[in-house]
Amino acid sequence: MTSQPHRLSDAEIQSFIDAKTKPLGALGRIETLAAQIARFRNTLTPRVDTCELVIFAADHGIAAEGVSAFPQAVTQQMVLNFLAGGAAANAFARSLGIPVHVVDAGVAGEPLDAPALWSYRIAPGTESSLRGPAMSSAELAQAWQTGAEIVGRTQAQALAFGEMGIGNTASASLLAHKLTGLPLDTLVGRGTGVDPAGLAHKRAVLGDAAARTDTTLSVDTALAEYAGFEMAMMAGAMQAAAEDGRMVLVDGFIATASAAAALARAPHIRPAMVFCHRSQEAGHRVLLDWLNADPLLDMDMRLGEGTGALLAWPLVKAASAMLCDMASFDSAGVSQG
Amino acid sequence: MTSQPHRLSDAEIQSFIDAKTKPLGALGRIETLAAQIARFRNTLTPRVDTCELVIFAADHGIAAEGVSAFPQAVTQQMVLNFLAGGAAANAFARSLGIPVHVVDAGVAGEPLDAPALWSYRIAPGTESSLRGPAMSSAELAQAWQTGAEIVGRTQAQALAFGEMGIGNTASASLLAHKLTGLPLDTLVGRGTGVDPAGLAHKRAVLGDAAARTDTTLSVDTALAEYAGFEMAMMAGAMQAAAEDGRMVLVDGFIATASAAAALARAPHIRPAMVFCHRSQEAGHRVLLDWLNADPLLDMDMRLGEGTGALLAWPLVKAASAMLCDMASFDSAGVSQG
Repeated sequence: MTSQPHRLSDAEIQSFIDAKTKPLGALGRIETLAAQIARFRNTLTPRVDTCELVIFAADHGIAAEGVSAFPQAVTQQMVLNFLAGGAAANAFARSLGIPVHVVDAGVAGEPLDAPALWSYRIAPGTESSLRGPAMSSAELAQAWQTGAEIVGRTQAQALAFGEMGIGNTASASLLAHKLTGLPLDTLVGRGTGVDPAGLAHKRAVLGDAAARTDTTLSVDTALAEYAGFEMAMMAGAMQAAAEDGRMVLVDGFIATASAAAALARAPHIRPAMVFCHRSQEAGHRVLLDWLNADPLLDMDMRLGEGTGALLAWPLVKAASAMLCDMASFDSAGVSQG
Repeated sequence: MTSQPHRLSDAEIQSFIDAKTKPLGALGRIETLAAQIARFRNTLTPRVDTCELVIFAADHGIAAEGVSAFPQAVTQQMVLNFLAGGAAANAFARSLGIPVHVVDAGVAGEPLDAPALWSYRIAPGTESSLRGPAMSSAELAQAWQTGAEIVGRTQAQALAFGEMGIGNTASASLLAHKLTGLPLDTLVGRGTGVDPAGLAHKRAVLGDAAARTDTTLSVDTALAEYAGFEMAMMAGAMQAAAEDGRMVLVDGFIATASAAAALARAPHIRPAMVFCHRSQEAGHRVLLDWLNADPLLDMDMRLGEGTGALLAWPLVKAASAMLCDMASFDSAGVSQG
């Protein structure tokens, strides 16, 4: 006979929080977040004080259709920038004491010769999803499994996932559209900053790409038809991280589309997910609403790389600290109201 | 002849930010914050990576009129809790690596015998502002000056200011009302959590207290008539910190009322001030709007102690890191769009 571990009830968690030396509910969303962490980890004192950032980089065949303000070469250039420590994600991570790992999930061109790079290339970029499936089902399976493998190389109690890939807001819009059935137009935005004519062109290209397949697709088909390698790999990493008891910090539009895919495959991982920020990219708000997710930060950002997840990390750490380190009215000898 | 130091223009700052490896404007409010820090410090690379929290505690005569959900003894009990490291502010500060200093600005009862306490007692609590001035003008001058002295005991490039004082939302509402001329009722809220009957009573008491004096008052008169010692001392500290080139992290409703007083005396310190969070306390939103301040965080918190300022600190540090540590398109060899 195996004994059933006790599952903490919401009421047990709430009364533990309410005994802390503060007016009832006075820590607002930090209390909600703390309750989520306690529930997920099934302990009243879940210590979550380490975080690592993994940035998945890959190229997108659809970039050749002129859907981005930047040339495709920028994906590889930014990988080098991450490795040199010069990108926004590096600056933020360093200021927070968070290690950064950079994964080549499928960057176009020759493989980079950089020892610090975690090289897990599926192929030098996906195919254009305007013309056919972005990847094969074998490539999708490899990407998903690789995500799990990468989680195995990290130790932190929380993992932030970022991405880099010219054209990947286009892929994220298509993936989100096929997963949710939400109107494609509400999910398309300016990405890194296309102008109005560029946005009209992007909408037309994505409309044609979407028209190739049924209105909604199964998660595996949606991923193979429209995702990038970095997105499939991130989704696999999210599932593996959550199943290993790590908190999963969800960044912006592309990471949220990956999270939606991970949740479609593994709905039980939702309690691990912290939606970190609301991006300025138009589709993010729509997709968050569909997921019934209310992110912690609203900083008018739209960069990706995990920057929004990084900035929310101290809030997660604070929620854990509230549970683990705050005194109770009794223990501190403070009178209650 | 002394040479005039070059004042950075907004255009110089903006073009420095725009050269960083990210799409134009993609870091949103972090860029705005970075520009503010650069302007205030008059350098394109203002290093702001240390912060200290100072919590000012004092008691309020008006607490005797039954305007709070907690008994006055809680002020002193919470001072002991801060010193023991058990309050929310301690838990958050520890998780962020921020030292905490606790100031007795005028707690009721006998002075506490605690070596770690920074004892600057003006008196054992203010008088009830329902019946007459809360403090004398000599006490006000002493409190303001003491704030400057306390800043001299800190070293960090940014200072977060918190407060503790049973009844101090009542005093903050009256102070804000007399400084701004905004309707008193819009500035009164539930504080630590009075029930509807308690709120009606609080409104009646504050209405009577406000009726004792002219509709609006000069800043010195408003402070002496209605403020707490912790608020006057914090306002003095804010001015001194800003004039010493430190960033000032403004917490919730009470800290914002103190900031409004500091700005009324010293409008030139505004560029030092970062409004950190929007409290659930009803008057905070109204006062922030009057100050034309749009805080960084909206976490539904209403605790004080500097907890909101602490949670915003990593954003300030990240903004500084963006300026100091991010590569430019040129230096990183990244193509522009």
